[in-house]
Amino acid sequence: MSWTLAQLAERLNAQLKGDGECEIHSVATLQNAGQGQISFFTNGKYKSQLLTTRASAVIVHPDFESDCPVNAIIVANPHAAYARVAQMLHPYPRADHGAHPSAQIAPDATVAKTASIGANAVIDSGAQIGEGVVIGANAYIGKNARIGTDSRIFANVTVCDDVVIGERVILHPGAVIGADGFGQAYDKGLWVKVPQIGGVRLGNDVEIGANTTVDRGAIEDTVIEDGVKLDNQIQIAHNVRIGAHTVMAATSAVAGSTTIGSHCMIAGAVAIAGHLTIADNVTITGMTMITKSITEAGSYSSGISAETTAVWHRLHARLKKLDDMAKRFQHIEKKLKITEE
Amino acid sequence: MSWTLAQLAERLNAQLKGDGECEIHSVATLQNAGQGQISFFTNGKYKSQLLTTRASAVIVHPDFESDCPVNAIIVANPHAAYARVAQMLHPYPRADHGAHPSAQIAPDATVAKTASIGANAVIDSGAQIGEGVVIGANAYIGKNARIGTDSRIFANVTVCDDVVIGERVILHPGAVIGADGFGQAYDKGLWVKVPQIGGVRLGNDVEIGANTTVDRGAIEDTVIEDGVKLDNQIQIAHNVRIGAHTVMAATSAVAGSTTIGSHCMIAGAVAIAGHLTIADNVTITGMTMITKSITEAGSYSSGISAETTAVWHRLHARLKKLDDMAKRFQHIEKKLKITEE
Amino acid sequence: MSWTLAQLAERLNAQLKGDGECEIHSVATLQNAGQGQISFFTNGKYKSQLLTTRASAVIVHPDFESDCPVNAIIVANPHAAYARVAQMLHPYPRADHGAHPSAQIAPDATVAKTASIGANAVIDSGAQIGEGVVIGANAYIGKNARIGTDSRIFANVTVCDDVVIGERVILHPGAVIGADGFGQAYDKGLWVKVPQIGGVRLGNDVEIGANTTVDRGAIEDTVIEDGVKLDNQIQIAHNVRIGAHTVMAATSAVAGSTTIGSHCMIAGAVAIAGHLTIADNVTITGMTMITKSITEAGSYSSGISAETTAVWHRLHARLKKLDDMAKRFQHIEKKLKITEE
Repeated sequence: MSWTLAQLAERLNAQLKGDGECEIHSVATLQNAGQGQISFFTNGKYKSQLLTTRASAVIVHPDFESDCPVNAIIVANPHAAYARVAQMLHPYPRADHGAHPSAQIAPDATVAKTASIGANAVIDSGAQIGEGVVIGANAYIGKNARIGTDSRIFANVTVCDDVVIGERVILHPGAVIGADGFGQAYDKGLWVKVPQIGGVRLGNDVEIGANTTVDRGAIEDTVIEDGVKLDNQIQIAHNVRIGAHTVMAATSAVAGSTTIGSHCMIAGAVAIAGHLTIADNVTITGMTMITKSITEAGSYSSGISAETTAVWHRLHARLKKLDDMAKRFQHIEKKLKITEE
Repeated sequence: MSWTLAQLAERLNAQLKGDGECEIHSVATLQNAGQGQISFFTNGKYKSQLLTTRASAVIVHPDFESDCPVNAIIVANPHAAYARVAQMLHPYPRADHGAHPSAQIAPDATVAKTASIGANAVIDSGAQIGEGVVIGANAYIGKNARIGTDSRIFANVTVCDDVVIGERVILHPGAVIGADGFGQAYDKGLWVKVPQIGGVRLGNDVEIGANTTVDRGAIEDTVIEDGVKLDNQIQIAHNVRIGAHTVMAATSAVAGSTTIGSHCMIAGAVAIAGHLTIADNVTITGMTMITKSITEAGSYSSGISAETTAVWHRLHARLKKLDDMAKRFQHIEKKLKITEE
Repeated sequence: MSWTLAQLAERLNAQLKGDGECEIHSVATLQNAGQGQISFFTNGKYKSQLLTTRASAVIVHPDFESDCPVNAIIVANPHAAYARVAQMLHPYPRADHGAHPSAQIAPDATVAKTASIGANAVIDSGAQIGEGVVIGANAYIGKNARIGTDSRIFANVTVCDDVVIGERVILHPGAVIGADGFGQAYDKGLWVKVPQIGGVRLGNDVEIGANTTVDRGAIEDTVIEDGVKLDNQIQIAHNVRIGAHTVMAATSAVAGSTTIGSHCMIAGAVAIAGHLTIADNVTITGMTMITKSITEAGSYSSGISAETTAVWHRLHARLKKLDDMAKRFQHIEKKLKITEE
């Protein structure tokens, strides 16, 4: 698959500088690009790489146009333009329409003509697979689950019964959508399972990382709105709602019934407690623990960065004596007759 | 599937108020319930929802009986009673007895007549599948593994060789039971794999969440006792033992050879080091790190809750100077002739 | 499978004390070993177990030779010697050569004669499976992926397209190698997917735990060098490089483009930010957050150990007031005319 530079610029609605007839067949880094390859430049730190690149073209911001020694596509947001060009040059491989002979499709499942069902995949009773959907090898689509147009379900994914998935959704390998939420009622020392009869709804353009789990609701649904992107090994508990266009990095977890706003950016290894409300446009930095609702947009943190173990042991010991130190400090303040405001 | 209110009350051994002939077909929330639906009420905060509910019946504590505007089932523990009613109204779908034609069952495996083996599931040599067991699509049951009566193994689960699973156990999709523990012997800069020849034993009524991993023992077994409930994406290392009726929330991890007591409640994102002993009836709050044995029942914590990033940066900087501050503080105490007790 | 003690000692190049003709068929703990079993002793704390063992033989350090009441193999590193003996006595079960009839192998895939392909496994177009490789049930090997000699891929593993795996590699169940990295370009409130066109290369003798994920690179490859051992549920993001013979314990995560040196030891629940460089021979203790590059070998930490929740609440409250306390402290220093150095 190759495009001329002029075609790429036109698709991006971007200004072109140089040879529009130049054929581009793939993307590469500034350092390693060669003939027929396009790269992008966003970080001033690497300007020397721009100056010496052998790419056939580079996507650059207008501020760096004059520094680009080769053909250029000039755009306000080179990273997003790069993403779109890379999608044109490197789409997912086309899948054959129809089902592999080894796929097991229930007689009452509905599979669109242009869908592709991989080897040993299982489509259970009543499931509906939309046009252009690609189901990977060994994936399982549960009873009455619905997969919207052009979604791509990779190998070994599990979509449980009744889950509803939007259009252009991507589920990476090992993701589990719609397993039971963790509902246990305590009764005289024993735990009684609370059936999880809600579902899961994923909006359009959602992407779910490898081995990420999104549980079904206890009574009502767990909801992931349009354009949400979840990285790998994230845990979304029952009845969570994640607002549109929120992104979350790997290994973060959200406990039950928490509502997260739209356009949030949640870093990795974050833990968010249950029954909270997080406003729109909230940023949470890595390894932060959220235990209260957040009502205002902004950035929130609680992770502690590393020291050498020897230094940390001293700090850790001091931290453990902080209550004692605070009391002794108050004693001194009293002695010196300093009034606390 | 529907029951009369009188039947439900009888099963719960509970007092009924109102129309015992009322037919109940499903559960719902107080807010959304309608004709033929039953709900429950436990949280005084939502009393207005109780007062205005359109449910056909509500499960309530005796204290709120008079507030319930509709038929009522009156019990000391409405949440547990709700769980039992929901199990009656919403059991897992019945699975057909026998094996799907695409399932691969080794000739010397034993599958009970009332068991159900899903499409493309694989039952390996010598495995024993008990009465009423349901094995999901694409699941793998290893050599000589044993699955007890009425257990339910969901899609894409892996049960490794020789694992022994009790009765009424639930394994959610993507769970891996009995993979090798992480045994590596250091030898002059290289790591030599230590074969993991122990097994895994899960007791009765254990529930294991999606993508949770329970490793096999190094020499002897990893043991999960009766009634333990593990949420999603939990890691249980080799030779851990978890006592009966302990629950653990998502993404927590327990390192090798640690013994956890019974009736513990361990929140999410907790990390427990290896070779420890945790007493019975211990509660551990979210994101806590346990590095020493816990000998007494009670609640334990070390997670830090979030601040705005600006505030946290100041606190973090102060924390990093705590050793310095403590020394200067001691200097002042000396100067003021305050004797430390 | 059984060996004489003399044969074991010869293989280990170790000194033998006692009856070389003694037949050994399995390993066991000092406490539980009996006739025909071999154990090992490394920890002085358990000396009473050595003194009373009924093992047929024990692997011991020269310092404890005289304490061993039974046949002994005497070596400088009993744990590594034990690992090698256990590998001899308890190798993975031999797998039949050839493919199970239910396995789906693309016509243009290459499968070596001595390889074994499990039931319902899928080998996609152009994949190359080396001599002695064992592919577990329901595993998926993507297009043009290459699996080196004697590697073992367990059930339900996903190896994505173009991934290159070395020799003697072990991938435990549920591992996902080569899913898309988390690349999203921000554009006016929306996230545009950045295609992930790099690959993943795993060196020789790499071991990857159950449900661990290693993402493919954005443009260039993610690389795991020879002898790296990753425990379960680890997340390795795109373009990470992990140096040879580094080990990492369960649930740790490494963000994108970070390079970790060789011979590092990274404990569990550690989070390492992106775009960092970690030197060789670095140790990181449990639950530590790494946000800056580490240029020197040594041990690093930031995890906080648990207190009772009551004590922790006091410490936590004090920590939250640390900025205030520091300011009041500076005020006193001023008042007392103590000059800060």
